[in-house]
Amino acid sequence: MSEARVGRILLVGDELLGGTISDRNVRMITTALANAGVEIDRVEFARDDRAVIAQAIRRLAEGADVLVLTGGLGPTSDDVTRDGVADCLGVPLVEDAGALERLTALMAERGLGAPSENVKRQARFPRGATIVANPVGSAAGFRVRVQGCDLWSLPGVPMEASAMIDAVARAVGRPDVSWERTIATAGIGEVRVAERLEGGGFHAPPGARLAFLPGPGGVRVRVFAPGGLDADVLDAAEAEVRALLGDWALPGRSIEESVVAAARARNRWLATAESCTGGLIGARITDVPGSSSVYLGGVVAYANEIKAGQLGVDPARIESEGAVSEVVATAMAVGVRERFAAAGGAGSAIAAAGPSGAVLPVLGLSVTGVAGPGGGTPEKPVGTVWIGWADDRGAGASSFRFPGPREMVRERTVNKALEIAYRRLVESDG
Amino acid sequence: MSEARVGRILLVGDELLGGTISDRNVRMITTALANAGVEIDRVEFARDDRAVIAQAIRRLAEGADVLVLTGGLGPTSDDVTRDGVADCLGVPLVEDAGALERLTALMAERGLGAPSENVKRQARFPRGATIVANPVGSAAGFRVRVQGCDLWSLPGVPMEASAMIDAVARAVGRPDVSWERTIATAGIGEVRVAERLEGGGFHAPPGARLAFLPGPGGVRVRVFAPGGLDADVLDAAEAEVRALLGDWALPGRSIEESVVAAARARNRWLATAESCTGGLIGARITDVPGSSSVYLGGVVAYANEIKAGQLGVDPARIESEGAVSEVVATAMAVGVRERFAAAGGAGSAIAAAGPSGAVLPVLGLSVTGVAGPGGGTPEKPVGTVWIGWADDRGAGASSFRFPGPREMVRERTVNKALEIAYRRLVESDG
Repeated sequence: MSEARVGRILLVGDELLGGTISDRNVRMITTALANAGVEIDRVEFARDDRAVIAQAIRRLAEGADVLVLTGGLGPTSDDVTRDGVADCLGVPLVEDAGALERLTALMAERGLGAPSENVKRQARFPRGATIVANPVGSAAGFRVRVQGCDLWSLPGVPMEASAMIDAVARAVGRPDVSWERTIATAGIGEVRVAERLEGGGFHAPPGARLAFLPGPGGVRVRVFAPGGLDADVLDAAEAEVRALLGDWALPGRSIEESVVAAARARNRWLATAESCTGGLIGARITDVPGSSSVYLGGVVAYANEIKAGQLGVDPARIESEGAVSEVVATAMAVGVRERFAAAGGAGSAIAAAGPSGAVLPVLGLSVTGVAGPGGGTPEKPVGTVWIGWADDRGAGASSFRFPGPREMVRERTVNKALEIAYRRLVESDG
Repeated sequence: MSEARVGRILLVGDELLGGTISDRNVRMITTALANAGVEIDRVEFARDDRAVIAQAIRRLAEGADVLVLTGGLGPTSDDVTRDGVADCLGVPLVEDAGALERLTALMAERGLGAPSENVKRQARFPRGATIVANPVGSAAGFRVRVQGCDLWSLPGVPMEASAMIDAVARAVGRPDVSWERTIATAGIGEVRVAERLEGGGFHAPPGARLAFLPGPGGVRVRVFAPGGLDADVLDAAEAEVRALLGDWALPGRSIEESVVAAARARNRWLATAESCTGGLIGARITDVPGSSSVYLGGVVAYANEIKAGQLGVDPARIESEGAVSEVVATAMAVGVRERFAAAGGAGSAIAAAGPSGAVLPVLGLSVTGVAGPGGGTPEKPVGTVWIGWADDRGAGASSFRFPGPREMVRERTVNKALEIAYRRLVESDG
């Protein structure tokens, strides 16, 4: 076991400081570097200003082994990361003939003509830099040493940074040790997770530490070894955490992965009927690669007429009980289950592969709610949500009241619906 | 006109540095403070360590007017932001009787019993701090002065921070001036936007500057006045940008807002048929408050059997052409349009309100593609996507090949589909 190496990140871009976009690189970089034994201890944002960038690099390189920059490598005049790095090193920018050739070829291929002077800046790098190829975009990255620190400059577009981070991790990594195990949970708060583990006598193994990471999809428990440990030691710690948490611990890295795994293990299919979430539940399920082996699809029944016409909900009940009600949530789950189970009908490939012939074993999951900002009433204020289910053991619905603005109500609804689906699948074993 | 005040943000939390979650507060805070005349020039992340937090506060308070901290106010032992601030000021933490009373009442209301010693820490604040109420959670925030800087400490949960940022903006704001105008675009790259504006002779008004903000949903053009300007001046600049960009400029702040606005202005309804995006298009449309006045809903047809059974796509064509094909994309759009237009049938509230009686004027929008990581073939590699449409003028589909991993293919597909829907709606005027 050795000390972890220290990593830092500098995110360059006015768009990050101007309220236009949210960062989507830090999580990806910290994960990739943690798996290479580099622990990120500081992150900073800098605007598109070469003096500001140079100053931030000096501040962050001090005491760091690895510094990853993202952003500011584009073709417009406000892209000045390369200038900031060169200033910091006291070297000029030098045009690279190979990079210019690739850039020219790429632009020709995309029908954009010869590169303008601005675009040609993407072929210039601080003297002495090693060029890092960009497999999915025009802006190449580069690597230099600054004050003894290994500096990598990558594009800011998450897709491009993400395509290049593996090269960074390979260059700085150590293949012999493991760094962390993360256990996802559902339906249990941070305080109770801590009580379960501490009350159960759990201690992180020497060289590792325990963290509770609350997130929108539930609390994650992380056992992290800053200096690296044998895989066996971390595996044993993970097993102990799982034993103490019992059913609260999820088998997958997220609730949606766990739903897909639970359905697959039980030969169940899933179908969704969504109103206020507008397709978010389907989107989360289909985020999981391979979800096509368990997810048939769903109906987004935003208008009441679609709840009736596409899911068979009785319009008279929508009228009398309201669209946000137990009876409508239950009828939506039953409706999507019945209609989608028929997908296993005559001649279908699914039916041929499935265990039960013409009618598929489907778990129908539904949501209907008032996400806001409008639509609330004294009886059904904004945040009121009904989540319904239907399977071979019956059907029903539960109500919730989620605080917060529209976006948060929708997100909490999705997480709770996925948790209900997971519990329903797991309980069907008993 | 005066100088902008300088704002900074410190995000506290191991979860942000450990690869568990992505930041979702910076964008919200920078937007709220920009509208109050405070320009954020630096953002840092800090781990849950009181010495690290105290040091970061000293570094960031220097030269700043406002410093916003988020995170580390929770009930567990690793929540030490309050300790870090107190260390920085050289004052002790003091229990606030009113805060303890509210905390005790909140826990009783939630059936959680009396607060433990850990939970009680949420009622302790650096001596001399002003408590900032949290309308949606248990952790109150606080405000203190550090080195002449106005420091606000808020919870890290985005919903809670978001519910409290208005109090910050009100306290630091100036109601007499405007700060910025942002114009969203679609279907045009950063370089061409710059060429259009610069070639058209656009200059930002004195006291303002122009920025091009590339983002996943398209480039945004921002006219920003760091010191504030009269609303009229910024309105005129926005009008000039819009005139130069013509149809590339979107009426709404995003492509989805623009789709909803364009449909509403033309009394059109929207219906979606999604395969590889799994509901993301519906989710984006229903992100827009009031989208229920134009969005009927859709079908998530993930399995081929659902494309056939719920959308009427001919199974023989799926077999012969493949699910990712022009004919299937077109048939999905036609199918969802026909089936959902019937929602305007006898007795429906929509039909009564609509312009055309029993059959609604619906734009059907469909996607089918190979999002990866599996499923690619030499003819249809990962990233191949067909986007289809159907309206009263006809039906068709276009193909695209998007680079990048699954998540990016799906996101680009959603953006392109929304852009196609927007153009189709706007062109129907001509």
